[in-house]
This record gives sequence, C-alpha cells and structure tokens, in this order.
Amino acid sequence: MTEPMFPRLALIGIGLIGSSIAHAARRAGAAGHIAVHSRTAATLKRAHELHIGDSYHADPADAARDADAVILCIPVGASGAAAKAIAPALKPGAIVSDVGSVKASVVAQVAPHLAQEVHFVPAHPVAGTEYSGPDAGFAELFDNRWTILTPPPGTNPEAVERMHDFWKRLGANVDVMTPEHHDLVLAITSHVPHLIAYNIVGTAAHLESVTQSEVMKFSAGGFRDFTRIASSDPTMWRDVFLNNREAVLEMLGRFTEDLTALQRNIRYGQGEELFDLFTRTRAIRRGIIEAGQETAAADFGRPHGKADGE
Amino acid sequence: MTEPMFPRLALIGIGLIGSSIAHAARRAGAAGHIAVHSRTAATLKRAHELHIGDSYHADPADAARDADAVILCIPVGASGAAAKAIAPALKPGAIVSDVGSVKASVVAQVAPHLAQEVHFVPAHPVAGTEYSGPDAGFAELFDNRWTILTPPPGTNPEAVERMHDFWKRLGANVDVMTPEHHDLVLAITSHVPHLIAYNIVGTAAHLESVTQSEVMKFSAGGFRDFTRIASSDPTMWRDVFLNNREAVLEMLGRFTEDLTALQRNIRYGQGEELFDLFTRTRAIRRGIIEAGQETAAADFGRPHGKADGE
Repeated sequence: MTEPMFPRLALIGIGLIGSSIAHAARRAGAAGHIAVHSRTAATLKRAHELHIGDSYHADPADAARDADAVILCIPVGASGAAAKAIAPALKPGAIVSDVGSVKASVVAQVAPHLAQEVHFVPAHPVAGTEYSGPDAGFAELFDNRWTILTPPPGTNPEAVERMHDFWKRLGANVDVMTPEHHDLVLAITSHVPHLIAYNIVGTAAHLESVTQSEVMKFSAGGFRDFTRIASSDPTMWRDVFLNNREAVLEMLGRFTEDLTALQRNIRYGQGEELFDLFTRTRAIRRGIIEAGQETAAADFGRPHGKADGE
Repeated sequence: MTEPMFPRLALIGIGLIGSSIAHAARRAGAAGHIAVHSRTAATLKRAHELHIGDSYHADPADAARDADAVILCIPVGASGAAAKAIAPALKPGAIVSDVGSVKASVVAQVAPHLAQEVHFVPAHPVAGTEYSGPDAGFAELFDNRWTILTPPPGTNPEAVERMHDFWKRLGANVDVMTPEHHDLVLAITSHVPHLIAYNIVGTAAHLESVTQSEVMKFSAGGFRDFTRIASSDPTMWRDVFLNNREAVLEMLGRFTEDLTALQRNIRYGQGEELFDLFTRTRAIRRGIIEAGQETAAADFGRPHGKADGE
C-alpha cells in the first residue's frame, strides 16, 4: 500500500462517477478519508448504506472543509453553484477538480468562485455506463479508459501533476489539452452520438405506420444499441448540450451535411459511394479495438435467454 | 430427436446467417442432409473445412436439386440471379425462402423465376453480429430473436406453416406480415440506425479539427458503439439501401425533421424540451429489455484489460 495522495478527499455528488471514484480510490489506497455530499437526501442515505465513503454531509461546505482535493461529480450545469457553496470552506493549497463532460463552460462557471490559493484542475474521465446513482458505481470503471485534464493557463503545475497521478492510480490513462479542444473532441466522440441516439429513439416512438411494440420486438437489428445510449442520465445530458452548444452545433452541421450526401446516394442508387463509405468505416473500428478502447467480441449476438432484466 | 422437417436443405450462401442456420438446424435435428453453395471458392472451401454442411457445390443448381427447402442466404441484390440459377433444378413442392433484410424487393426479384409448383416463403431473421463469413456463424444466433415471414398473397398456407415451424425449431419467435410493412418496420429499427452509424463514423474520420487518433482514444464516450454497427458487411448493407430506398428515405426524412427540432432546442437553450425527450427515451429501452430483446447488463462499462483483440 502506498501512502494516500489525499489524506482527505471530498466528493460533491455521489452518482455513477462519484461512487466509482470512491471505489477506485479505495482500491488504489489513493485517498485517506472520503467525505461525501449529495444534495438529495435519499442519495446521501443510500451512499451511506453502501459504505461508499467515510463521512456523509448534507452541506457541501462541510464535505469540502479541510479537504486536500474536492471533486465535483455533478451535472455540468450545477458546477457554478457548487463551487460557490464550497469556496469559503476550502483550505489554501486545496485542489478542486470535476468530472464534467464539457470543460470550457465548467471553467467559466467555477474559476471565478475560487480563491488564489486554491488550485483548479478540471478533469473528464471518458468512461461511464447507461446507469446512474450510487448503486451503479464500480472500481474498474476507469481502468484503461482516458481521463482528460484541461487546466486553464497559469494553473499550478504541481497540482496538475498530482491530479495526473491520482487518475493514473485510479486505473486511467491521462491526457492534457485545452478546454476548447476537449469540447470539440467530445462533441464528435460523445455528444453528437448521444444526440442522434436520443433522436432516433424519439422518432421511432412517434411513428404512425409502425407501432411501439414492433419497434421493441424487432430492435435487435441495430435499434436496441441506440436505446442503450439513449437511456443515459437526462439531467447530465441536458446540461451537456446546453453547455457545449457551439461545438455540438458545429459537429452536428457536419454530420447533417454528410447524411444529406448519403441520402442522395440512396435516392439516385449510387451503390459504389455507399460501398466505399461502408468499407472505410471498418478501419476506424479496428483502430479503436487496437487502441484498447473496445473488445472485439461479437456483441450483436448478445447472451440469449437470460435477457429479461437480470 | 424429432424427424427432420426437411430431408434435404440447401443453403445458397454460407456467411454469418447461412452458417448459423446450418448450426441451428443441426442442433434442432430440423434438417437431414445440408447442401451448401457459395459462389466464392474460398468460402465454400472454408465451409467444408468447418464441416458446416454435408455436401458442397460450386453450382447453386446442384445444391438446390431435390432439396425440400432452399434458403437464399446472400445479399439482397443477388436474389434475382440466384433464383434464376436454381429454378430449373427445383423439385415440385419445394419451398424457397431467403433471409434478406428487405422483402418487397426480394419478392419482386425472386417470384418471377419460380414455377407454380414451388412455394416461395420470404423470411427475415432479425439477428446478426458485426462479423461476416462462415467462421462467424453459431447455433444460438436466432434464440429468442424474431424471424419475420412475408408470404405474398396466395402463398400455399402449408408451406408458410412449415417455415414457421422450421424457424421455431431454430430457436426463433416467428411473426408474419406483408413485405411492405416489414420494409417500413425494418427501415426504422435497423436500416436508418445503420445509416446514421456509418455516417457519423465517416464524419468523424474527415474532420480537420479533431484527429483520427483522438477519435479512437476517446471513443468510449459513445462513439465506439456506432463503430460496431458501422463495421457490418458493406455489400449486404449497400444492397439494403439500394433495395429499400423508399422506406429508408421516408424514415430518414422523419429522423432529420426531428433532429432539426433538437438542433433548434440546443441553439435556443430550450433545456426542458431536451430533458423531456431524454426522459421519454428511457421507457422504450425498458420495453426492449422486458421484451427479451436485450440484456440489462451495463454494457458501456465493458470488460476491461483484455480489450485488445481477443
């Protein structure tokens, strides 16, 4: 066991990501005392029942007081209010971080509330499941996934280095980039994919010519994969789109432009163009598997028989 | 062991679906002799090495001769030519079926070639994986999935009943509908989802602001799920879009219309509308899990560590 990096770690929010950080930090011996806050009493109680932390606080300032690191594990839109609430309790030298899927907006919301002697190192672990809440967390969530740090210019380099080490200990690979570049990258690798998944599930639910029961029965042909993505947490995703508007609209514009070209290919029977695209996309898939970000197991043919809710 | 339904079953094409039918028919004792054809010599040789059938034929007519049932397991666009090739060898009373993802076009291509005494029962097993070829098949592929039969008006009811039984024995649930309705249902549950998956992977590959390496590294945020769908067989999918043009264009029009509304919600910061949609889509997911077409396991957090190609 190595010495804990943070004698006291505060987690502001204890859903899927917050609870997974607690489990992973425990596994790595990276934190001494873990102080937990949730603004929802039932969630805080549940986290307590699950023994996710060491102390439980209804007031975020109580959790953050004397902490060596405070991580906001809440929807992006709540970042500013949370930073304001914890700021008076922070000790000099404390590191404040977060796990938001959007970074420029979080920097703009959080930084103004923090004192000079506090170090702000925004972070985004690119990992998750379609489930939410403290029951959903597990220690392996970040293993071999990437966590992106986006320190604003002038951030204390030692603080960045410590968060880098912390995430490595939690099992993640770590990369550093600007908040703006992060928001562009994630717009195409995560935000627009979620948006079109939500969208097609919505479209399918409102057809007159095809019933919802048919959509569900015959979903194994591709649709069910979109429903998985489209069952992610609504509050988190609303905030993502509201807070990464420009990058999402830009990437969405590209997506729509390309889709319009495909639509024309179909309308005019241009099979070669379709075949070319469908062949090129396979190479990207291979690259992702080689990069260790995906298993090669044939997931379309999922385990059968026990598919009913276990 | 029950008696084989078809003393001789011919499979025209022995890729993922053809080889899975062979394995599943064997498991169920539903076929006596299984005659295999592939127009690709290497594929036929590989099927032989894998002992998928009982006899192997370079000429589809040789495979179909004296067969009680002949199933075309080939891309939709090749259906007409295959029907023409086997037609002279078919015995009176033989059943001809297929597995194509589009049905009205297959009916139009195949029916004109078949004699009065031959029964044509088009079928579509809504099951598959992202892999292709005779090595990809397995007996469980159809278990608890749906196979849709689309007999044209006037089809011999006994022949429909036999194909119904055959697919039940292979593990599938069976439904019957018109070819036209099938094509609408699958356009939304399978064809448009594949199209937008192919499209976003193509979009991501051609950005200037985000590198391909970044797209791959940070794909766990949603994008990698689309690459799985977008690595399906290019020939099969080209043919689907060329042969289900009208239904795909109709459903794509609905998708784009809805996406444009979402885009406006984002541009104007209409969070409530986003939240409402993101909440409603969860119900559809629950329905699919309850319908036994999906497992509830948290698949975003896939098995880690061994993700590199095993």
